[in-house]
Amino acid sequence: MKAVIGIDLGGTNVRVAKVTQDGKILQEVKSPSYALEGPDKVCANIIAQLHKIEGVKDCLGIGIGVPGPVDTIRNVMKMSTNIPGMTDYPLGDKISAEFGIPVYLDNDANVAGLAEALLGAGKGLPVVFYITHSTGIGGALIVNGKVVSGRNGYAGEIGNIIVTRDGEKINHLNIGAVENRASGIALVKSAQKHLDPSIDSAYGLFQKAQAGDPVANSIVDTMAYDFAAMCSAIGHVCDPYAFVIGGGVSQSHDLYFDKIKAYYNQLVHVGMRDVPFLLAQLDEPGILGAAMLPVSHAH
Amino acid sequence: MKAVIGIDLGGTNVRVAKVTQDGKILQEVKSPSYALEGPDKVCANIIAQLHKIEGVKDCLGIGIGVPGPVDTIRNVMKMSTNIPGMTDYPLGDKISAEFGIPVYLDNDANVAGLAEALLGAGKGLPVVFYITHSTGIGGALIVNGKVVSGRNGYAGEIGNIIVTRDGEKINHLNIGAVENRASGIALVKSAQKHLDPSIDSAYGLFQKAQAGDPVANSIVDTMAYDFAAMCSAIGHVCDPYAFVIGGGVSQSHDLYFDKIKAYYNQLVHVGMRDVPFLLAQLDEPGILGAAMLPVSHAH
Repeated sequence: MKAVIGIDLGGTNVRVAKVTQDGKILQEVKSPSYALEGPDKVCANIIAQLHKIEGVKDCLGIGIGVPGPVDTIRNVMKMSTNIPGMTDYPLGDKISAEFGIPVYLDNDANVAGLAEALLGAGKGLPVVFYITHSTGIGGALIVNGKVVSGRNGYAGEIGNIIVTRDGEKINHLNIGAVENRASGIALVKSAQKHLDPSIDSAYGLFQKAQAGDPVANSIVDTMAYDFAAMCSAIGHVCDPYAFVIGGGVSQSHDLYFDKIKAYYNQLVHVGMRDVPFLLAQLDEPGILGAAMLPVSHAH
Repeated sequence: MKAVIGIDLGGTNVRVAKVTQDGKILQEVKSPSYALEGPDKVCANIIAQLHKIEGVKDCLGIGIGVPGPVDTIRNVMKMSTNIPGMTDYPLGDKISAEFGIPVYLDNDANVAGLAEALLGAGKGLPVVFYITHSTGIGGALIVNGKVVSGRNGYAGEIGNIIVTRDGEKINHLNIGAVENRASGIALVKSAQKHLDPSIDSAYGLFQKAQAGDPVANSIVDTMAYDFAAMCSAIGHVCDPYAFVIGGGVSQSHDLYFDKIKAYYNQLVHVGMRDVPFLLAQLDEPGILGAAMLPVSHAH
């Protein structure tokens, strides 16, 4: 079975790996991404890194996880803030022309979700909804082993789901958007305001909650309700076989997943209860998921 | 190309048709469904109707649209209120054993959505979200020509999506569920309360709105906002290439689709704006969609 190439392209670094179709990394190289030197430089550098990998031309294909929404039909980024000039840039076509194998792009959350659906906590499930619960809140819908990217590449941009009409417009997201209420940053802000101005991480808040602080517990509880309300909307759209949750905040899963489950069960039809909420399993979902893009397109 | 069989099974009648894969009805029979005489009778009657159709054994397969959620892995209904005893009944297996071709079940909203995605307004689009805007609000997610039914058969049960935390618990749906605010029944109730107790249809309300009645217009506007809020949640999950809207209320589409579009554009990321909201096209989505189930499973 042919190997695949996964590329994790960020604003700072780019990592390139040759991976087996069942997710073993065979060879890996890393370099700066040169994001501020323009897309031609970024592309030329990726090609140079790929030439360090053995047997790229014999691989099934190349997948690239990029930091922003992707038009998967035209195979280009639709919006690129961390890599200026990459919007509409034919990165996939240029790399494909160099190595003669197919190249697929998708955004980093979709790619991480694909990794968890094919190799991680959601392995073997027909419909997986992956959620990254981190500084922000993002996600990915994976159906039958393929990412659903959508018309504009925004499928899974669940941080903008409205969970309440209360509140003010505070950024580009909707009033009452779940990301402004339940993300890592939102937790820290709430903890600083209501509990202790020196708290600088969601982990710090969870520690206080675990120690029995009632205010900390109330903040965690409110977050869990908002998060569950978001999951309820997702569930009524696609009724996943499992929610798989990764990202920094999810490291404290033992302190809040049960609350999410309980609220979710209150906010869905009786027949939808008890869907599993699973912790993401993979250490390297970015690069493994990118490598799974050609696999998912092959069947 | 082989023909297919579509069966539209309701609580009152069952219709059976032989259909070409591009949606032409070749032969059709209809009978009572005998829902109250038990599932064996319902099943035996369907088999008797199928024997009236020419060449069933030479068809690609049989699809059955049923009134309730379906476990598409086990191919049985998960809950059946209109046809008592049909929960977990092996309807598909029995019919398949009789004719020697595959039989697929799915619920009626999913089947109608599949018809619109393969033959109707969403033809050729990779991700279609179908919404039935009728007495209630239901829907279906179709990805790459296949219905996403989900773990419990509840994918597309969007009437239960929460669009506001305000309100009271009035039925089995969530507080603030969109179906209790924007469905045909909700429109009639609101019109009776705020406008005229004699209004008995959404159409009657739309007529008053079109005539310039400010209260009627306000009710329509509120409905459009709630409907758009639901679509915003759907859009952030799956970013469809189009929303296709059918059902009785949608007959007045020229009086409210533009409002929905305008509110939707306010409630999604800038890059997601201007997704088409299309009127459903098919006269017979139930039977055509059932017939498309074997087609969608064949590739």
